[in-house]
Amino acid sequence: MSSIIQGIAASSGIAIAKAYRLEAPELHVEKREVIAIEEEIKRFVQAVEISKQELEKIKEHALKELGEDKAEIFAAHLLVLSDPELINPIKDKVTTEKVNAEFALDETAKMFISMFESMDNEYMKERAADIRDVTKRVLAHLLGVTISNPSLISEEVIVIAEDLTPSDTAQLNRQFVKGFTTDIGGRTSHSAIMARSLEIPAVVGTKNITSTVQNDTMLIVDGLDGVVIIDPTPEQVEEYKEKQQKYEQQKQEWAKLVSEKTVTADGHHVELAANIGTPEDVAGVLKNGGEAVGLYRTEFLYMGRTELPSEEEQYTAYKEVLERMEGKPVVVRTLDIGGDKELPYLHLPKEMNPFLGYRAIRLCLEEQDIFRTQLRALLRASVHGNLKIMFPMIATVEEFRQAKAILLEEKEKLVTENVQVAESFEIGMMVEIPSTAVMADVFAKEVDFFSIGTNDLIQYTMAADRMNERVSYLYQPYNPAILRLIDNVIQAAHKEGKWAGMCGEMAGDSIAIPILLGLGLDEFSMSATSILPARTQLKGLSKEEAAQLREQILSLSTEAEVEALVRDKFIK
Amino acid sequence: MSSIIQGIAASSGIAIAKAYRLEAPELHVEKREVIAIEEEIKRFVQAVEISKQELEKIKEHALKELGEDKAEIFAAHLLVLSDPELINPIKDKVTTEKVNAEFALDETAKMFISMFESMDNEYMKERAADIRDVTKRVLAHLLGVTISNPSLISEEVIVIAEDLTPSDTAQLNRQFVKGFTTDIGGRTSHSAIMARSLEIPAVVGTKNITSTVQNDTMLIVDGLDGVVIIDPTPEQVEEYKEKQQKYEQQKQEWAKLVSEKTVTADGHHVELAANIGTPEDVAGVLKNGGEAVGLYRTEFLYMGRTELPSEEEQYTAYKEVLERMEGKPVVVRTLDIGGDKELPYLHLPKEMNPFLGYRAIRLCLEEQDIFRTQLRALLRASVHGNLKIMFPMIATVEEFRQAKAILLEEKEKLVTENVQVAESFEIGMMVEIPSTAVMADVFAKEVDFFSIGTNDLIQYTMAADRMNERVSYLYQPYNPAILRLIDNVIQAAHKEGKWAGMCGEMAGDSIAIPILLGLGLDEFSMSATSILPARTQLKGLSKEEAAQLREQILSLSTEAEVEALVRDKFIK
Repeated sequence: MSSIIQGIAASSGIAIAKAYRLEAPELHVEKREVIAIEEEIKRFVQAVEISKQELEKIKEHALKELGEDKAEIFAAHLLVLSDPELINPIKDKVTTEKVNAEFALDETAKMFISMFESMDNEYMKERAADIRDVTKRVLAHLLGVTISNPSLISEEVIVIAEDLTPSDTAQLNRQFVKGFTTDIGGRTSHSAIMARSLEIPAVVGTKNITSTVQNDTMLIVDGLDGVVIIDPTPEQVEEYKEKQQKYEQQKQEWAKLVSEKTVTADGHHVELAANIGTPEDVAGVLKNGGEAVGLYRTEFLYMGRTELPSEEEQYTAYKEVLERMEGKPVVVRTLDIGGDKELPYLHLPKEMNPFLGYRAIRLCLEEQDIFRTQLRALLRASVHGNLKIMFPMIATVEEFRQAKAILLEEKEKLVTENVQVAESFEIGMMVEIPSTAVMADVFAKEVDFFSIGTNDLIQYTMAADRMNERVSYLYQPYNPAILRLIDNVIQAAHKEGKWAGMCGEMAGDSIAIPILLGLGLDEFSMSATSILPARTQLKGLSKEEAAQLREQILSLSTEAEVEALVRDKFIK
Repeated sequence: MSSIIQGIAASSGIAIAKAYRLEAPELHVEKREVIAIEEEIKRFVQAVEISKQELEKIKEHALKELGEDKAEIFAAHLLVLSDPELINPIKDKVTTEKVNAEFALDETAKMFISMFESMDNEYMKERAADIRDVTKRVLAHLLGVTISNPSLISEEVIVIAEDLTPSDTAQLNRQFVKGFTTDIGGRTSHSAIMARSLEIPAVVGTKNITSTVQNDTMLIVDGLDGVVIIDPTPEQVEEYKEKQQKYEQQKQEWAKLVSEKTVTADGHHVELAANIGTPEDVAGVLKNGGEAVGLYRTEFLYMGRTELPSEEEQYTAYKEVLERMEGKPVVVRTLDIGGDKELPYLHLPKEMNPFLGYRAIRLCLEEQDIFRTQLRALLRASVHGNLKIMFPMIATVEEFRQAKAILLEEKEKLVTENVQVAESFEIGMMVEIPSTAVMADVFAKEVDFFSIGTNDLIQYTMAADRMNERVSYLYQPYNPAILRLIDNVIQAAHKEGKWAGMCGEMAGDSIAIPILLGLGLDEFSMSATSILPARTQLKGLSKEEAAQLREQILSLSTEAEVEALVRDKFIK
């Protein structure tokens, strides 16, 4: 008899295949006394070296299949294996306690893992996961145990596992792995993000898939609705094959719009742009018909390294994005680091509330060397395309003025140095802090454009960390409070003849799109794979009709009322 | 020659006296092998017992001099000394490693301290400070070293120290300790809060007072401006004696207004209320001429204990406050716990961003047993005075409706049980989350009153944790964004015939008062000691004049512009 498990939809699509259990290897560590200390340490160093070589290969594989930012995860893993703070205590333990390398490694790793986990900080927890992943590999080599090698899968399967480590996921071969499903994880876990890059349907957070499903059991993974069906009936298989086909057809329908402009049913154009993290992502933007890059997150340039990127490295990356976009607009957000997004080499202090902390423009205005280097790289790249620059986490008018002044200062310097710089480029800001949404009329006089960052704006406006499961119900994009703030920003921009875009997840959300169209949003920036579905939806909407509902929507009391109204009027 | 050190003004007033260095005892710990394990453990247990007895005494002293909530700190210290998670590992270490108790204690304490400190979470850091304070006492007893006993000071001095532990501060005798100044600490550190309770002038965070000042050096501590003068000239002593006198005169002037209503120069009445934490605080409210309690923080009832307070305990406390206030309004805020304000016995998970986390009404609507017990206690107390109930951290209309429904349900139950309940009492909410300020028109239809909690409202609106030194410059009470939100709340309340108060620190701020008066704020709730200065200021202000500036203020761009305008128009 078939059964159904509800999980979290992590990557779209339907997969139907038999289960393949990816088991974590049994790594049993015993404590032994060791006489030949030097040889024991040599054995340990060798295991580390082999592990590094493997990780290099996985990193290459990831770079080819998944893009640069995903490959960075393995760069980080390689760093862990080169970190004397981890390696030296293990060697010391072998030497002073005369114990075997397995035991020394296991004890030391456990100590670090429990330390990082006890911090109950998502970033630190990820670090704990990294250490676990890496040390498991070294331990397996020490013990002579083969660790799972998902890259060897050679028949069509759905992978099931308690969790997938980043190295597991990076090795999945799209040709054979039709989908995967795990006990733990959420929409933003490493494996979920990778599944979307690989376009493998995935359902995570099922809680008990591994305890209920044996090898070779037939499975359906519905990554659209977050459902896994175990041992489906023939009718269910039929039903889901149809759903699969429909989804494929829909993808084909979407694909037809790839070269079209985004025009509503009543002839209004809006711009559909993409959010990117690396120059490699531009391929996906063009493939999905993006009319612009609405948000280029420059953080990846700074991550997974041991020092700041040089002006030259940055220039090369920015130039590449601008050139590949062939004159289409590219909105670059200056460095948004700090808080939860940490750069170890900056040695920033831990904070009690990183989301309310020292990050982004706050850090850049203080550590001006970092900021000026980025601005120079951007200015030099400006001649290679249609660059727009925006500053993140602006809270006060003074901050915007100061950031803009520094940018213009660097421009003057370059001009004096006879370096070519575009004559004009737009300078804008993220609206992601409530104060700026409230003061949009004042800011609109000073900026060239706004880009509303709804992920943060919603968190601050509702005082709820959406990563925190206990309060994530308060992350309400359609709450009238949010919509009023967005409306205020758009109205203020238009009054000064400026444009307003949005680069949060909300911009690609099918309930939000009719509302935002009605409020007059000019640019919608989203993940590349959402562009074609959004264009399809917008083609069917009338901007005039949507605008007529504006006042009614803004006077509603709750998110539920807003959603009900939108569904009633716009979602067929 | 005299010199001047700038620190942080922690407690108002001027002190002129010679320095008394409060030195931390030299506690030098050696590792020794121990044969008589049982005796060593007995020695340790005795040292713990003596320390507990001392702490009990200090707690009594604190209760008498400082009030219940300050005494809770020592209740927490006593808990540390009864915590098997700390005590058992020490005993184990003595037993298994055959080491002396001093060494076992020191090593174990260091481990816990560095663990808590590495968490870089303010709450955890305070716990580290607690453990340091407590274990130092036990260690001193083990070593036979006398630890400093500030309660023995018997001549007029200004205490200087690197930092004052809570137990040091609690022992300060007001008669002889005229002021104190420390190297470290901020306005919200334990010692600063205690100094204000004791009304001892204090300057903290001087960075280097202990390295520059010897015993018996003459000092002036100016707790009004945060300045310490070392070895003052006769002219400086004269000058500060005058300043001291002026401050005393001002206090006397203020005292004359203690029984007066708060009426502006043009005859408008506003209500000046006090924020309190315990029934004991009511004495200070009445002494300072408070017209109401505008915020009764009920958290203290739940803190420094090992289990939840019973309905009866709570009833007794609420009844006492209501009775002592003799029919004057008492606004009780229901439990605002969670996040950084933790109750160990609730076993709440640590959060990455506690200020954006599971706390206050979010927790109460989930853990309804806790909430309903408090509401029953409040409802039973309602017959003893003029009770108003408000809910903290409301973000959505649904939350307010649900909280109110639960309150009315409990009222119905009590009525059915024939328990007396006031026929009517006002039900309101805190406005401290931006969403509610934006949606004030909708909320105003459902509440009886608003109380604007500016401490949180500013933090969320500016996305800046004010406890975080690096971003505390963004904690801007006069930022026009904040003022617009406050204005929106007041306007919305008045449109529905409701009243709007404020219970954040801003309500007692001399720059904010003219603005808030002009915006039409009905009730100002502040620390009791701010009431008389505020009444004095309000007597000199014209509400009509202040109101005429409303539009101009709300159209300004920056906090600096607002402050300049207010200073120009209202501050003589």
